[in-house]
Amino acid sequence: MTSSAPTPTNPHHGNTTLGVAAIGYAFMGKAHSNAWRNVASFFDVPAFEQKVLVGRDPEQVAEAAARYGWAEYATDWRAVIARDDIHIVDICAPGWMHAEIAIAALEAGKHVLVEKPLANTLAEAEAMTEAARAARARGIQSMIGFNYRRVPALALARELITEGRLGTIRHVRAAYMQDWLSDAETPMTWRLRKETAGSGALGDIASHAIDQVLYLLGDTVTDVSGRLHTFVTERPGADGTEQVTVDDAAWATLTLASGAVASVEVSRMATGQKNSLQLEIYGDKGSLLFDLENLNELGFLDATLPVREQGFRRILVNEPEHPYAGAWWPQGHIIGWEHTFTHQIRDFLTAITTGTAPSPSFEEGLAVQKVLAAVEESANNKSTLTVVNY
Amino acid sequence: MTSSAPTPTNPHHGNTTLGVAAIGYAFMGKAHSNAWRNVASFFDVPAFEQKVLVGRDPEQVAEAAARYGWAEYATDWRAVIARDDIHIVDICAPGWMHAEIAIAALEAGKHVLVEKPLANTLAEAEAMTEAARAARARGIQSMIGFNYRRVPALALARELITEGRLGTIRHVRAAYMQDWLSDAETPMTWRLRKETAGSGALGDIASHAIDQVLYLLGDTVTDVSGRLHTFVTERPGADGTEQVTVDDAAWATLTLASGAVASVEVSRMATGQKNSLQLEIYGDKGSLLFDLENLNELGFLDATLPVREQGFRRILVNEPEHPYAGAWWPQGHIIGWEHTFTHQIRDFLTAITTGTAPSPSFEEGLAVQKVLAAVEESANNKSTLTVVNY
Amino acid sequence: MTSSAPTPTNPHHGNTTLGVAAIGYAFMGKAHSNAWRNVASFFDVPAFEQKVLVGRDPEQVAEAAARYGWAEYATDWRAVIARDDIHIVDICAPGWMHAEIAIAALEAGKHVLVEKPLANTLAEAEAMTEAARAARARGIQSMIGFNYRRVPALALARELITEGRLGTIRHVRAAYMQDWLSDAETPMTWRLRKETAGSGALGDIASHAIDQVLYLLGDTVTDVSGRLHTFVTERPGADGTEQVTVDDAAWATLTLASGAVASVEVSRMATGQKNSLQLEIYGDKGSLLFDLENLNELGFLDATLPVREQGFRRILVNEPEHPYAGAWWPQGHIIGWEHTFTHQIRDFLTAITTGTAPSPSFEEGLAVQKVLAAVEESANNKSTLTVVNY
Amino acid sequence: MTSSAPTPTNPHHGNTTLGVAAIGYAFMGKAHSNAWRNVASFFDVPAFEQKVLVGRDPEQVAEAAARYGWAEYATDWRAVIARDDIHIVDICAPGWMHAEIAIAALEAGKHVLVEKPLANTLAEAEAMTEAARAARARGIQSMIGFNYRRVPALALARELITEGRLGTIRHVRAAYMQDWLSDAETPMTWRLRKETAGSGALGDIASHAIDQVLYLLGDTVTDVSGRLHTFVTERPGADGTEQVTVDDAAWATLTLASGAVASVEVSRMATGQKNSLQLEIYGDKGSLLFDLENLNELGFLDATLPVREQGFRRILVNEPEHPYAGAWWPQGHIIGWEHTFTHQIRDFLTAITTGTAPSPSFEEGLAVQKVLAAVEESANNKSTLTVVNY
Repeated sequence: MTSSAPTPTNPHHGNTTLGVAAIGYAFMGKAHSNAWRNVASFFDVPAFEQKVLVGRDPEQVAEAAARYGWAEYATDWRAVIARDDIHIVDICAPGWMHAEIAIAALEAGKHVLVEKPLANTLAEAEAMTEAARAARARGIQSMIGFNYRRVPALALARELITEGRLGTIRHVRAAYMQDWLSDAETPMTWRLRKETAGSGALGDIASHAIDQVLYLLGDTVTDVSGRLHTFVTERPGADGTEQVTVDDAAWATLTLASGAVASVEVSRMATGQKNSLQLEIYGDKGSLLFDLENLNELGFLDATLPVREQGFRRILVNEPEHPYAGAWWPQGHIIGWEHTFTHQIRDFLTAITTGTAPSPSFEEGLAVQKVLAAVEESANNKSTLTVVNY
Repeated sequence: MTSSAPTPTNPHHGNTTLGVAAIGYAFMGKAHSNAWRNVASFFDVPAFEQKVLVGRDPEQVAEAAARYGWAEYATDWRAVIARDDIHIVDICAPGWMHAEIAIAALEAGKHVLVEKPLANTLAEAEAMTEAARAARARGIQSMIGFNYRRVPALALARELITEGRLGTIRHVRAAYMQDWLSDAETPMTWRLRKETAGSGALGDIASHAIDQVLYLLGDTVTDVSGRLHTFVTERPGADGTEQVTVDDAAWATLTLASGAVASVEVSRMATGQKNSLQLEIYGDKGSLLFDLENLNELGFLDATLPVREQGFRRILVNEPEHPYAGAWWPQGHIIGWEHTFTHQIRDFLTAITTGTAPSPSFEEGLAVQKVLAAVEESANNKSTLTVVNY
Repeated sequence: MTSSAPTPTNPHHGNTTLGVAAIGYAFMGKAHSNAWRNVASFFDVPAFEQKVLVGRDPEQVAEAAARYGWAEYATDWRAVIARDDIHIVDICAPGWMHAEIAIAALEAGKHVLVEKPLANTLAEAEAMTEAARAARARGIQSMIGFNYRRVPALALARELITEGRLGTIRHVRAAYMQDWLSDAETPMTWRLRKETAGSGALGDIASHAIDQVLYLLGDTVTDVSGRLHTFVTERPGADGTEQVTVDDAAWATLTLASGAVASVEVSRMATGQKNSLQLEIYGDKGSLLFDLENLNELGFLDATLPVREQGFRRILVNEPEHPYAGAWWPQGHIIGWEHTFTHQIRDFLTAITTGTAPSPSFEEGLAVQKVLAAVEESANNKSTLTVVNY
Repeated sequence: MTSSAPTPTNPHHGNTTLGVAAIGYAFMGKAHSNAWRNVASFFDVPAFEQKVLVGRDPEQVAEAAARYGWAEYATDWRAVIARDDIHIVDICAPGWMHAEIAIAALEAGKHVLVEKPLANTLAEAEAMTEAARAARARGIQSMIGFNYRRVPALALARELITEGRLGTIRHVRAAYMQDWLSDAETPMTWRLRKETAGSGALGDIASHAIDQVLYLLGDTVTDVSGRLHTFVTERPGADGTEQVTVDDAAWATLTLASGAVASVEVSRMATGQKNSLQLEIYGDKGSLLFDLENLNELGFLDATLPVREQGFRRILVNEPEHPYAGAWWPQGHIIGWEHTFTHQIRDFLTAITTGTAPSPSFEEGLAVQKVLAAVEESANNKSTLTVVNY
């Protein structure tokens, strides 16, 4: 007997197959496409279809659509948003395009997933948040892509904290260390110009670190002190040496409403650190350690055990008991970085079909933006102290 | 402008789109399907189609086919092999079925990928190897699925060894530690009965360890001394207590033609070790360390550097310079266990289109089987020495 | 034949055996005594004698003198300093006593080793530095006990940096994490009162972190931004609840004359971190990692190697080629924390006999004090930014 | 007030100050001397005196005695043993001298500590054990120097196992990896000749690994299967190339009376491993990991915790709650390799004064020797299986 494979149905949305459009096919577009292509193979999600991939260059987007599993490609995102068979818009375009697309899509009644950061300016972020709030009232969902919330180890960290296993949290450290600008001869890109990128390491990677602090602790920031620095101020450009106008590194301390204090430190010059988002969370009953370069592991110390047997445990977060992990492979068969996007799509789809607002919301994205803006303002206003006669 | 995504063509096989059938939809079927579904999104491979998934239970295989991206499902593998539109047969069925299916498929002119171990008996493995040899002469390719050869870190290890960076290799350690049988109340399964599984930890995981020794060193085994042990001899079965008739753990030392000596030690009772294939390779110019639970990393010590600065390096094998890694994500964005299968499919497809025999061949699979058989024979014949009066 | 063991002579000071007095027999007194007792068994040093241990409580100091290998004990440090047979005064008393003793000893013509911090106030530290400068002109040496400069791994780090192996250093991270105040019920001590301790984590452990930054980079601080925080503001005292008047944690960023930026973060509330002085130094040609809890190891990444084989090396700093290590045990036989004091005594004695000023000098101790004071001033003046409406 | 430090008294032996003689001043003599010199500074032990150091070369032993804190030196061990003021004989001479000295000392009524291995031959070891048994009946104590039993982390491991925290122990791995013979040009020494050294890696380091298996599990060996190998069979000698007549590496599996199986693997050719005694002990309720290169740490997994939070903990064994650790420094201030000898002397002295037989006894040393002999016999008799046609 040979037969066609059955089509899964969507019990929450009737028989509608959700049509998905993605905008952008570069790094993030590749990662999101991978998630759309695979999510239904591992998780029970409503029926959907990878309808159309949108991009500016027709040849390149055609090639990307074919490669990444999209049925069609398009170059005009407005036309795509207008289509009746598109229910979900996944925005992977650069930050300066987020506001326009997201607001238009929400107003057109499309569920919207947007990559972080929410926007390049606070004003845009606030407008987007307003649009999301209005859409939500009409049953239209929106979400910002802080995908690291879907690292199983960090979801487990969140569970442990929520259950009180860390007690009162006090000292928190968040660092995100990369080295791709370590070579002073690495040429200029749009990412190093303030007008296109908004900021440097701050918006790009401190945003992840700050979101983790807020997510894991379930807390809010009350005070910020920050600093920005550009180590390599000039780089080779297309037309000769060009000025770098964003930060290479950033430092901040955040006071949280709970009384905890978090340091945030990020760098693109940390030679040898490739993609190391490090988190350390110290409470009076326990502590947690994490490093994105070993994302299948969570370090946990339970300070309520007898002192004699206390120590940081390396929990390999691959058990059926762990968040998301049961859907993949048997214990000890580790997952990769891109799986966090698959989890994100799964949760986004689930939220759409159950009609519950997904998290992180645009409001949560805006909260991170506000902290970023405060770091920048603090850095600009800082009257640092000079150590004289030394 | 909105258009259909273009169909990729296969420059090596003319315009033929290769039709693929997979047999088996359990653990390995899921892993192989994932690889077929994704390989073309990351690698340049010839055009192929996931035609049909084959399994015994019509309902389950239908569900699996839909979930894993196969166009059709079927229950009769013979009928599928007979189809003209099927060019590749990927065998993920249990070991005792390998020989019959593989030989039939090869004789029908299909390229065959078969999961490890090659077969449950040496006789079957030899017959398969003979069939593969004959088929190869007719341009039909075959490959055994020792997927860990496609871990980028181990492919890099192979490169370094081949280039002589380790000098003369002497002491080699290979261990594969798991713990899923650590609980004595874990019930019987077919994997614990000799008649269905052939052997226990020996065939299941020592096979991977031994293949790595042979692959990395490019060497052959001359002498074997081995030991097998079953720690928990009875387990709860469907009809009361049942005898475990395979090994829980195995130990061996292998003498290699080069003069190196490799120890192999595997266990399903190593509480806390989930999927830890550990390799240690010591040469007079350098050494390598590896652990599958951190498969993105390779430990390398270069003993030709000044002593003052020698030490094991943790190479995060995610750079464009590393095998397979450039196809995925930027540096430091780690990949998961299942990506090794994607690399395997990529190499298999490349071999088919270039007409070069892929490795590991059935001969290489047979070589591992012979070592496994020698371990078992040695274990059975061992007259261990009794330490008296102690 | 049985004979008395020969007495070693001091080739640099004629036949004078240097008489040593130590002041203080608590934690630091125990560690310094251990160093004096053992240094001559491992290193070639001039002849000296552990003459007298000085303390306030006659019974306790008598017991300590016997236990730690001192020939005599005394309670009046002034009388001891006046003795002709005392050539070296080792000050292990609390910080508020440093200035008076050190200045008196230097004026009396004694070589002085003083524990860190140099003093509790900048004014005292400056007076001590002045006294040391004057004494040095008369051939009298002085040194401050930043013993971690004598960790072999950090001495090796210094060598590598000096040789240019890290290239231009930019991003530096220094943290010192402890947890002995994590329990809010831990009672008050003099260490938690500003009037006796001067400061909390800042003076106690940030001083070590800052000294390492200055030592390893051979650099000076130009600007400081800092923050202090007390997480547990009240603790049980002898007469009921008492206010904690020093910091539990401190954060700072230091701009260095070279253009590098160093963050410093210290805590006594980092549950599970026992004595973790962590250093990360990122240059454009290489990077270093260190953790005092694994003080025999140095992490080194050489960014001038081919990318394919770059990675942080774990150098086990126990080879004859490594600083200090040859005097101890064969390779891989690790040393402990207290050995750093033995190295310190060895270098101090060597400086005395060769007539060269030892490092770190009081000037170097003063430089650290100035940075600490700047952190405190910055923390007090900080107008942090409030993130509103969030 | 200045006074002489008081002399401690020995409450168990009346007012007798125990006189100690050590024989041998090379590597082990240095380590033992260090322990004698320091033990009373950290532990409460009976009064004793470092009377005399014995060696063959009068000049060298004189220098060593002065350097290591011995009051006298001597060249005739028989004369020293005959002295009334000597109560303890610490034998650090080479293995072939152990039997003669130990038996003579025991018969002379001296307490004896002897370095491992107990002797170079089983016959000598048995004679020594007999002498120790007879002496013990007369209140004379004896002990063999398996100092690694006094690593705090391993003493803690023993506690946890004794308390049943690991449940039923099954799979055990013990390896001791060094690399000091990795260079084929390293010249011949007496350690590489069977007539002087007895064996190679087997007796030197497998003895430690086997003792740990027996100690930690409190178990005995019933069956042994072993293998020996010499990778570099010729080395440069004083008079040209010379044959190496001992093993470079050894492998064994030991069946234990409890039903556990332990593998033992040792090597002097493991390039990059300096002094890595690795232990892995897997029970059905928990597991332990240890590496001598990080001897302050114990890895412990508690399999009775919820699966979600299981993981190997890094216990930093430096707390007052840990064996021996309270005597040294505050938490997190790590100790070194040589401290294990200090603990050994402390326990030996305690045993003498309390009149209880110390452990490990000569019987325990003999048990290890018997296992070593069985490994050698098994290796010689082994008929390995040839894997043909491969």
